[in-house]
Order: sequence, then C-alpha cells, then structure tokens
Amino acid sequence: MENHSTALDTAFRALADPTRRAVLGRLMRGPAPVKELAKPFDMGLPSFMKHLKVLEESRLITSEKVGRVRTCRVRMEQLAAAENWLSEQRVLWEARTDRLTDYVENRMSWSEDDDG
Amino acid sequence: MENHSTALDTAFRALADPTRRAVLGRLMRGPAPVKELAKPFDMGLPSFMKHLKVLEESRLITSEKVGRVRTCRVRMEQLAAAENWLSEQRVLWEARTDRLTDYVENRMSWSEDDDG
Repeated sequence: MENHSTALDTAFRALADPTRRAVLGRLMRGPAPVKELAKPFDMGLPSFMKHLKVLEESRLITSEKVGRVRTCRVRMEQLAAAENWLSEQRVLWEARTDRLTDYVENRMSWSEDDDG
Repeated sequence: MENHSTALDTAFRALADPTRRAVLGRLMRGPAPVKELAKPFDMGLPSFMKHLKVLEESRLITSEKVGRVRTCRVRMEQLAAAENWLSEQRVLWEARTDRLTDYVENRMSWSEDDDG
C-alpha cells in the first residue's frame, strides 16, 4: 500500500508540468531520441534533461544510450495506475449519483401514490 | 491552452499526496464536514487544513461554512479533465501498438506468401 501510494505520488507529481506532459504525449507515438524530444521546447538542454529525469525517476519513461544517442520510450504501468485511480473515484461518484437519482425518483413515485 | 495546462498542473499536483487522495476518495461517497474528514488521519488540524486548501485551490473540492460547521464536497470537472488527459494518452499509445501489430502480422503474412 505504501509503495503503491509512493508510485502514485511520484507519477502525479511528474504529470503536474506541461513540458513533461507534452514529452509523454510525443512518446505515446513511439520512442524518440532526447535531441528530437527537446526540439519543440524553448529551454536549455540541462533544464530539459531535468524534466526527463523526473519522468524517468517516476518510471513514466525509460531511456537507453546506444553510442552517442539516448533514446526515450514510454512505460505504461504508472500511467495506467494513475488512470485507474481516477476512474475508480469516478465510479464511486457515479454510484452515489445513481443512488441519489433512485432516491429522488422513489420519493417522486411515493408522492404520486399519495396524490392518487 | 495555458489555462487548461495550469488547471491540469494544479490538479495533478494536488493528487500527488496520499492524504489528499484519501480525502477525495471519501468525498466521492458524499459531502462531509471537515471534522469527520480529518478523523482518520494522524495529523494536527492545521496540517490537515493545508491539504484541504490545496484541494480547494486546485478546484477538486469546494467547501461551505454553515454556522460553525464547514462541509466539503467534491467537484468532478478537474478530476474528469485529468482522467481525460490520461485516457487520451492511452488511446494514442494503443493506436501505435495496433499499428505495430498490423505491421508484424502483415510481415508474417508476406513471409508466408513467400514460402507458399
């Protein structure tokens, strides 16, 4: 449980940044070298590398250096865990909304019975 | 776009904490007063109120004080935006996985044709 919390903590923290989300969005389409990933962003390479480090430490991406080229690819496990957590919450919320609807509809049908 | 990014930034940042996620999980079942929300957590009320403040500032919850009781309730818009962003990424990734599968299957069927 504690480990699970920690993984979700670091995943959500890593997702709380537009540059890191854009990098993930690019990597969903396939692996890419760091140089290509950095191109769209108006920041120095050291700053960009810090973002990659956050993504890698939170296990949202992995990277491998072959020769002089470091290639990044996405890892889906933590993203799936984050999405699952959010969808579980929505299911809880929808169950409650359904119960409220049932309650209101039952009240309305009782009150119709009273009228009749 | 900038506003959307900022809303996702603050939502994901707020979600990066087990206490705040647990509070949200409780509120999915229905509104609750602060005192009840704080009960399961082994921390002082001022620390707990800071977590509520983060959740409220990121618009994941709202609160209202009636008399001496402050009641919190969940707001689903930002949670839905976060879930949507994650599911969009998964769809991109699945599309790529499907393309890869198609590619491999086509290659295999070509190579079967070659054999035949």
